Amino acid sequence: MINFEFYCPTKVFFGRGQHKRVGEIIRNYGFKKVLLHYGGGSIKKTGLYDEVVKALNDAGIDFVELGGAQPNPVLGLVKKGIEICRKENVDLVLAVGGGSAIDSGKAIAVGAANDCDPWLFFSKKKEPERALPIGTILTLSATGSETSTSAVITNEELKLKRGLNTDLNRPLFSILNPELTFTVSPYQTACGIVDIMMHTVERYITQKGEAEVTDRIAEAVLKSTIQAGRKALKNPEDYEARATLMWAGSLSHNGLTGLGRDYFMVSHQIEHEISGMFEKVAHGAGLAVVFPAWMKYAYKYNIPRFCQYAVRVWNCEMDYENPENTAIAGIEATIDFFREIGMPTTLRELDVPEDSIEEMAVKCTNYGERILPGYIEYGKKEIIEILRLCL
Amino acid sequence: MINFEFYCPTKVFFGRGQHKRVGEIIRNYGFKKVLLHYGGGSIKKTGLYDEVVKALNDAGIDFVELGGAQPNPVLGLVKKGIEICRKENVDLVLAVGGGSAIDSGKAIAVGAANDCDPWLFFSKKKEPERALPIGTILTLSATGSETSTSAVITNEELKLKRGLNTDLNRPLFSILNPELTFTVSPYQTACGIVDIMMHTVERYITQKGEAEVTDRIAEAVLKSTIQAGRKALKNPEDYEARATLMWAGSLSHNGLTGLGRDYFMVSHQIEHEISGMFEKVAHGAGLAVVFPAWMKYAYKYNIPRFCQYAVRVWNCEMDYENPENTAIAGIEATIDFFREIGMPTTLRELDVPEDSIEEMAVKCTNYGERILPGYIEYGKKEIIEILRLCL
Repeated sequence: MINFEFYCPTKVFFGRGQHKRVGEIIRNYGFKKVLLHYGGGSIKKTGLYDEVVKALNDAGIDFVELGGAQPNPVLGLVKKGIEICRKENVDLVLAVGGGSAIDSGKAIAVGAANDCDPWLFFSKKKEPERALPIGTILTLSATGSETSTSAVITNEELKLKRGLNTDLNRPLFSILNPELTFTVSPYQTACGIVDIMMHTVERYITQKGEAEVTDRIAEAVLKSTIQAGRKALKNPEDYEARATLMWAGSLSHNGLTGLGRDYFMVSHQIEHEISGMFEKVAHGAGLAVVFPAWMKYAYKYNIPRFCQYAVRVWNCEMDYENPENTAIAGIEATIDFFREIGMPTTLRELDVPEDSIEEMAVKCTNYGERILPGYIEYGKKEIIEILRLCL
Repeated sequence: MINFEFYCPTKVFFGRGQHKRVGEIIRNYGFKKVLLHYGGGSIKKTGLYDEVVKALNDAGIDFVELGGAQPNPVLGLVKKGIEICRKENVDLVLAVGGGSAIDSGKAIAVGAANDCDPWLFFSKKKEPERALPIGTILTLSATGSETSTSAVITNEELKLKRGLNTDLNRPLFSILNPELTFTVSPYQTACGIVDIMMHTVERYITQKGEAEVTDRIAEAVLKSTIQAGRKALKNPEDYEARATLMWAGSLSHNGLTGLGRDYFMVSHQIEHEISGMFEKVAHGAGLAVVFPAWMKYAYKYNIPRFCQYAVRVWNCEMDYENPENTAIAGIEATIDFFREIGMPTTLRELDVPEDSIEEMAVKCTNYGERILPGYIEYGKKEIIEILRLCL
């Protein structure tokens, strides 16, 4: 186990009906003026918007609102939110939605509290020093943003998707009601399953050292997600399955599943270039394409680790004579599962043309400035090879 | 999964050498005056005391000190600490040691910030409204107090051991360096292993409902603790084993292993009466005696749950024709393990006489006022039966 720091201060309110407590929760914290931030309007269709507004009104909480956060949330809307927060003296951002609304809300909360262009933080030119507090009501089990340090924003002018990781991004509270995910489509549910798995597995199949309890917790999250994912797709209103996905999603990205391990999320980095260039690509679908290719490329550098993954997560039989067979069986089990839940596993299925590979690899290395660490180092050449395995 | 709230704000600094950062950490928080609280002096023998004092001095942190926290920490010393905190305007309690020093420090921190007899909080006559912040440097993997809401104090006049659970008891930060546990004796190491397992398993083998991801995380903590426990007893300076025990200990009692389940820690409640009346009994050793007896008493009320425990934690074979055999195999595996690591499994081995059973049962039910919940309800009669199974 390498040295680590762990901090996860977000207060979680989990379960049926919890979102109706949002007004009371905010009042107990003592906030006066809220920015209610949400996405494209699905929360109006489901009735959630009305319930949240009622809860705020009942608790006497004053609020202004900003809708329109979209998948791969954009800087333009973030700037608009910052302006509203300053003008209206907002003291809490309340993001209602999936990872997009929450990430957008986080960027607004950081931007509103610092007196400079918020993109400076995402392009890593400057460190933020403070942020408005943010609370969330989650409607999609996927990104883990509801407890994580991270926010990902797309600069629509530069066509660049970049993340900001800071403890300032940790929500003060997050309300997790699995019932709010009953209406999520099978495709989006599957994208979420992949995202949860990837947040866990990219911390798990790493190059260095022992971390027994972290390993087993990661396996716990993976096995639960696989099992509950199948159930939720079969019966979208299976409360236990939706609850497992929701809690697994929060645990997968709050830091817990990687403690004591040295990791770098290579597939995530490569995928960001795909959905950065091709807006229609859902992050989870992009990961379902990149991760199998990465595994095929990387497994030879750490066969024991891939065997542990195959045996403990997928119940593959260990081939003691030829461990490579077991490692490959784990890769195949992953691909089979992604296909089973309706995910693409090739760039072709995403409508991403072969001739964009070079540009994505160039961007992923920051025009050659950056080499991604891992079992081996990933420069432009290696990333191109991985992307070719996605064809 | 039943509804839950989860909050674990303690910042953990984990790993080799981390305790040397304590001065810098406290300075970064902005505290001015510290009460350095510790136990019977073992930290002076090991040199830890000198290193902590040096770190505080190097960072320019002013401090006063109070040693003498003993196993089953007592109210008298707590009151002394409260007096010092008030007189010296202490703004942070720093507890260095195991669960005893930390629990004692928590009671001081709560007591110093409220203007009444601190026993009122432990006897549940009053709720505390505030507490001084507390930081910890852990030297024993066992109680999980370094991240938990709980503190247990013994009123030496009334010979009563009582716990206070409140978010105010959460340490602000905890420094966890596994190297500081290399010198822990085999007996105390084994007591810690049992305590970690019991914090997990008493949340796990419960009466109601599903909580898949919580179950698997509990199993992860249990399996890691069993495996690392054996290694640490064989080689006390096995860093990875000590690290696993230390982190498993913190996770076992911060709430994570019971989320979404309805549980009540019956064996803990019964054991508190044993070590409350017989000061020489270590809490972990007492649990190793009570828990097997509770299992023998209770398993018939939930055979499927005991089967899951046997198969997933102890790798017992499932007997599909006669599941009861599997349930019993899990109980036997637990007892075998406790014996293997040198723990007592009978009251006789603890020098607790048979004729004290009735008094313990009477106290455990608050003189008949309290019935403990669980698969069945536990009144005086049931507790006597369980304690008789400990003979």
